[in-house]
Amino acid sequence: MRNERASSMSTPLAPQRRRRADRAREIADVLRRQILDGALREGTLPVENALIQEFDTTRNTVREALGLLRDEGLVDRVPGIGTFVVCEKYPHGLNTLLGLGETLVGHGRVSNEIRSAGSVAAPPAVARRLGLAKPTKVVYLERLRSLNGLVLSLDLTYLHPDVGEAVLAEDLAANDVFVLIEELCGQRLGTAEISLEAVNADPHSAALLQLPEGAALLMVERLTHLEDGRPVDLEYIRFRGDRVRMNGLLSRPHLTSPGEEDPCR
Amino acid sequence: MRNERASSMSTPLAPQRRRRADRAREIADVLRRQILDGALREGTLPVENALIQEFDTTRNTVREALGLLRDEGLVDRVPGIGTFVVCEKYPHGLNTLLGLGETLVGHGRVSNEIRSAGSVAAPPAVARRLGLAKPTKVVYLERLRSLNGLVLSLDLTYLHPDVGEAVLAEDLAANDVFVLIEELCGQRLGTAEISLEAVNADPHSAALLQLPEGAALLMVERLTHLEDGRPVDLEYIRFRGDRVRMNGLLSRPHLTSPGEEDPCR
Repeated sequence: MRNERASSMSTPLAPQRRRRADRAREIADVLRRQILDGALREGTLPVENALIQEFDTTRNTVREALGLLRDEGLVDRVPGIGTFVVCEKYPHGLNTLLGLGETLVGHGRVSNEIRSAGSVAAPPAVARRLGLAKPTKVVYLERLRSLNGLVLSLDLTYLHPDVGEAVLAEDLAANDVFVLIEELCGQRLGTAEISLEAVNADPHSAALLQLPEGAALLMVERLTHLEDGRPVDLEYIRFRGDRVRMNGLLSRPHLTSPGEEDPCR
Repeated sequence: MRNERASSMSTPLAPQRRRRADRAREIADVLRRQILDGALREGTLPVENALIQEFDTTRNTVREALGLLRDEGLVDRVPGIGTFVVCEKYPHGLNTLLGLGETLVGHGRVSNEIRSAGSVAAPPAVARRLGLAKPTKVVYLERLRSLNGLVLSLDLTYLHPDVGEAVLAEDLAANDVFVLIEELCGQRLGTAEISLEAVNADPHSAALLQLPEGAALLMVERLTHLEDGRPVDLEYIRFRGDRVRMNGLLSRPHLTSPGEEDPCR
């Protein structure tokens, strides 16, 4: 018998000759997408025999693929009955700057539990990002955000004092901060620098988000500017990985250097 | 003593009156960003006393914040000596469509271990996304991708047969597939639909990515089109959450309906 690892390092295996775990991942990924897109809805996952045929594979491989999706909390399996989609991941737009309530319009009502709100001395790193000379105060806001009563995210927000104090007087439980800022400043928001990571939930954040410790979170840092360029809103957002995904459309950049011009065009 | 939970449900706590775990997360988030941006480099994390002053907090809270960053693998703490940054997360662009080698230009050399490569019967869901009538074959490619010898991602790729067969004949270990497709097709890529999630690594994927089971992964599904609109490349990518983050710039959408026009402009 050949050494699998050594062989995979040298010559690629034919797709059909791979180990069951590799094939199971491949199948799970295709099914995952169909589940997330709503092509497979609750109670309608194809029966094993159909999946065996669809993916040209064995029963054990299909079962291992379904096991991966179950471990992720996307499906539930009832022996003798079938496999059921049990999870919905809400799509958060990646192309335009929208508040949570705005991006989830049509999915239900976003509500906010305000965990903390008030003025704080700005840590120097926060002051710098908000374009403030130190020492100064900023407004700090901490919200646990839910859609239709299901917790989606924990948001830590630092607001520029020019707008922050006024935001504090508004109904933060029912409104996106973005909308409030635009109303109060009398101008639209412009752009936001966004940074996205996957992190494991620490025990305390996990408890707040009603997740087991170590659950995968989509962690977003976002610095939002007014249309005139002033930074106003610095946020650290932990999204539940099992309830939120980000969707966007990317474009291939135009070639800039004449030396890099595509010879085929 | 007041009931903390009940009180946080009704009246928000002043930022200064929160529990230590809440303050620690807040501080860890600000430090995390400084680490990721390279503002705090290896061996240069401020000493505890400086952090206590910077964040206007207690020694125990600073230690808890550093503990969160250590548990994430971003820093290491040597008692009596200090805290050291031990991790670098490479920035993957979110605004333009680039291959891994292209987006990490300047960070080092991307190499690819080809785990599998060849023709397979397209699962119906894959065929549909690639705009193919079934039954048909597609080219399947599985790569473990590294930067300077450090594993970054596991990529499962389905290529349209028109381009896939030709791609298979190229040097896949040293080249981005995007670049090969453009060379072989004689046209640039156009746009890609991207979907991003945070998931916990299953045991087999974790082993390939040299991570502990359950580690947070940035999971990307990406369907890439040629400039003429034809879909050619469907990918399922698992990025190591501790080594890759996504950076982008979002713009506030323009108001379209006259009824929604901003009255302040």
